[in-house]
Amino acid sequence: MNKRAVINVVSALVAVTGLMILLSGIVGILMNDDKNSVMQMFESAAFSIGFGTVLFLLTRSKKKKFQLGIREGFGIVTLGWIAASAFGAIPYIIISKMFWHDAFFETMSGFTTTGASVLDSNLLLMNGKTLVSGIADLPNGLLFWRSLTHWLGGMGIVVLSLAILPFLGIGGQQLYNAEVPGPTSDQLTPRIANSAKILWGVYVLLTVAEVLLLWFGGMPMFDSWCTAFGTLATGGFSTQQASIGAYNNSYFDIIICVFMFLAGCNFILHYKALRGKPLFYWKDEEFRFYFILAFLSSALIAGLLMYNKITIHTTAGLDVAPGLFNSLLYSTFQVLSILTTTGFATANFDVWPAFATILLVTLMFIGGCGGSTGGGMKNSRVVLLLKYGKVQLERCLFPHLVSNVRLNKMRIPTGTIHKVITFFFFFITIFLIVALSLCLLDSNMDFRTSLTASIAALGNIGPGLGKVGPTCTYSWIKPGAKMLLTFAMLLGRLELYTVLVLFLPSFWKK
Amino acid sequence: MNKRAVINVVSALVAVTGLMILLSGIVGILMNDDKNSVMQMFESAAFSIGFGTVLFLLTRSKKKKFQLGIREGFGIVTLGWIAASAFGAIPYIIISKMFWHDAFFETMSGFTTTGASVLDSNLLLMNGKTLVSGIADLPNGLLFWRSLTHWLGGMGIVVLSLAILPFLGIGGQQLYNAEVPGPTSDQLTPRIANSAKILWGVYVLLTVAEVLLLWFGGMPMFDSWCTAFGTLATGGFSTQQASIGAYNNSYFDIIICVFMFLAGCNFILHYKALRGKPLFYWKDEEFRFYFILAFLSSALIAGLLMYNKITIHTTAGLDVAPGLFNSLLYSTFQVLSILTTTGFATANFDVWPAFATILLVTLMFIGGCGGSTGGGMKNSRVVLLLKYGKVQLERCLFPHLVSNVRLNKMRIPTGTIHKVITFFFFFITIFLIVALSLCLLDSNMDFRTSLTASIAALGNIGPGLGKVGPTCTYSWIKPGAKMLLTFAMLLGRLELYTVLVLFLPSFWKK
Repeated sequence: MNKRAVINVVSALVAVTGLMILLSGIVGILMNDDKNSVMQMFESAAFSIGFGTVLFLLTRSKKKKFQLGIREGFGIVTLGWIAASAFGAIPYIIISKMFWHDAFFETMSGFTTTGASVLDSNLLLMNGKTLVSGIADLPNGLLFWRSLTHWLGGMGIVVLSLAILPFLGIGGQQLYNAEVPGPTSDQLTPRIANSAKILWGVYVLLTVAEVLLLWFGGMPMFDSWCTAFGTLATGGFSTQQASIGAYNNSYFDIIICVFMFLAGCNFILHYKALRGKPLFYWKDEEFRFYFILAFLSSALIAGLLMYNKITIHTTAGLDVAPGLFNSLLYSTFQVLSILTTTGFATANFDVWPAFATILLVTLMFIGGCGGSTGGGMKNSRVVLLLKYGKVQLERCLFPHLVSNVRLNKMRIPTGTIHKVITFFFFFITIFLIVALSLCLLDSNMDFRTSLTASIAALGNIGPGLGKVGPTCTYSWIKPGAKMLLTFAMLLGRLELYTVLVLFLPSFWKK
Repeated sequence: MNKRAVINVVSALVAVTGLMILLSGIVGILMNDDKNSVMQMFESAAFSIGFGTVLFLLTRSKKKKFQLGIREGFGIVTLGWIAASAFGAIPYIIISKMFWHDAFFETMSGFTTTGASVLDSNLLLMNGKTLVSGIADLPNGLLFWRSLTHWLGGMGIVVLSLAILPFLGIGGQQLYNAEVPGPTSDQLTPRIANSAKILWGVYVLLTVAEVLLLWFGGMPMFDSWCTAFGTLATGGFSTQQASIGAYNNSYFDIIICVFMFLAGCNFILHYKALRGKPLFYWKDEEFRFYFILAFLSSALIAGLLMYNKITIHTTAGLDVAPGLFNSLLYSTFQVLSILTTTGFATANFDVWPAFATILLVTLMFIGGCGGSTGGGMKNSRVVLLLKYGKVQLERCLFPHLVSNVRLNKMRIPTGTIHKVITFFFFFITIFLIVALSLCLLDSNMDFRTSLTASIAALGNIGPGLGKVGPTCTYSWIKPGAKMLLTFAMLLGRLELYTVLVLFLPSFWKK
């Protein structure tokens, strides 16, 4: 691996992180933050920009350009996410006096679009105090930065999943390889540049659309931006301690549902739709599976709430009767929030009947579509596994059956399918190892909490059940367990393989 | 499929079931059961023998011999287990007045060597009464029959996994294909006959050894036989309501631990060891994995109990201080019982810390070794998945890497590996579908209970956590949910594929 090249690219990312902190500081001025916190934002920004720029200049290539290959790709992606989170954590530490592990958790949760938060009134700070009013104690500039980490992470993911991972040959994601416009090249850089322009255009467009729709409905402009960042990135950070439930506004809920759903779709489909081919949505097998799964799950849970007359407890503490509209609204919101791995909440689904909680946990494993900002295993992988399972079953009867697995009429290469099934095995295994280790690292973990905290981190969802349920935070968890969860977020976000290969001895050999 | 041939073989099995009920009736006489119950055992026996014999004669082939192919193999195995359970349930119904769904559950749990029981003092009977003293209310003949279903089921499984499944080409099990002595043939019958003789010899030998060791230690002869049946079959039915914990005898616990461990090993290894090659155990990669897994899990849980000074509650209601000996003894017993999928219990592990419960649930998924009487996914499959996962990871760096997965130095064919990974996907998917359906069929199910009841049935373990924990039974569950669990036992026992192929339309086409 060309370490110099990796450090060069990563240090540029650190400088960009600094620029974005600077932007958040400016938003803080516009939102009348106190001078002190604005100055501290600028200090954090200056440090990242300075450090990043100096390191970038020191590691420049003497030749024209670095040749970036597969190994450099893995290194840049993993180290990039870690470095951005490390430098992005600085404002939390110097403004809110958070411990570095809490700040790093919050930032990694932002950049990986997980949305698990340690911010509540119990969070112990370095000065021995607590955040008396929880999230509301943070200056607006820092809150904006918090939501912006989601949005930037989402941008990273769109490009990662549709341009970089296919280049790195990581399972299931190269399905859309041929569909990404622009030159196919053995070199990393031109691919990214081209795809990025198009996909970021779609991403920005959808974000602005959601901001405007929320703002028209009466949400403050600041909240609209932060919420839209959290939605499009399928992140889940909100500016309210009680998440979206705090607004108690069905119009907001519906708008956010629509955009969560869109954020969980493959962005290539949006691009095609915007170019006048809206029928492409339904022609896509993954989209159909995703749509039907979301629809059926919402309907089943709504039916369950109505049939058993279960009063809905909103995250803001209100009780709502399970009529047709509210059952459907609250059920659909939680289903879409979990399936797309956003993690916003309007109702405390932790107290729903076992069918609802087990279904939601199952959806956590499935996650969004390939090429979306969503996490989890991805619908395309589940579709491929189901199809491949059927072929294997038929081979019990006809051992010499030659049957190709196809997705969207394209024959899927055997190598891709193997990566997909191995991914499934890794995902489940890592989920169990993380859950077991959490119990060892923090004896306050119980069965329900530890298992769902593990998948909530690995699937980049945010809330789980039990002590990490939708009305709780991760503040109470011991530092070691927090660090493990941070690592699980990174693993899940980078599709396991990207991080796991770094542990192969052969990765480091010349 | 040659339906006549399938019915012919299955009706012979029904007649054999009848003969075994007859044997249990005779044991009832020896154990001084009341005349009434003995007569009812004989009536049940006569019905099965008569029905089976008549149907067998009616469906005899006009030609010399039936040609049994792959389809007939699937049909016989699945239908055989169902028919044996249906006819084996009759004694429970006419002697104890149990509802047919309860009796069928108990018998299927026996023949699949699951060991989940509905027998306790809450079980409602057809006459509106309950079993006042639970298991103790059953006459000895019926108790013997209950344990005998385990032992017969175990016999079936040994032959199934080492002779029939390889013939049917079901993943992972054909690993030992070449090692089964006797002629390799495209015909089902000669293979079975040959393998059966050898393997049943080992099975009988181990059973007698355990009976004698328990009896020498002071266990009543009747209990010794029933316990040995439950151990060697990795079943878990006990003649005591409080399972093995009722004896409160460390010597029994240790003997049973040893034989549970042996029952979870591949029986081919025992055969080789008995022929003077004991080193074959350690040469076998699956055995090593199984041994290390059992050892580490026991040590970790014992350490956890000691470190946190957690008083051990035995299933008989006693409190035991967590000293070194007792921590190790109770930890090892529960670990071996769960890993081998036996399901005996001496301690209420449901109240142990989350690390222990999550580890035990993980072991439920793994189960015994291929070619043992144990259930679960089997250690060999997990070993293959881990090896294959490493190869896939290396392929991220070296896309054109040619690397064969080997087990015991034998190259594993690609087709086998594919069946193994698909098996993993099916296993997890069916586990989730069963858990979700249980919640819909019985609203008393909670998160912990429904998930663990599902794996306890599918993995043929017996006890789970929560309301189906080691001190509970399945008596409270609604009939629909009981039927689903019965089906899950069958699915798990017959390695999924055997049952699932019957749902393929192409299975029924000529």
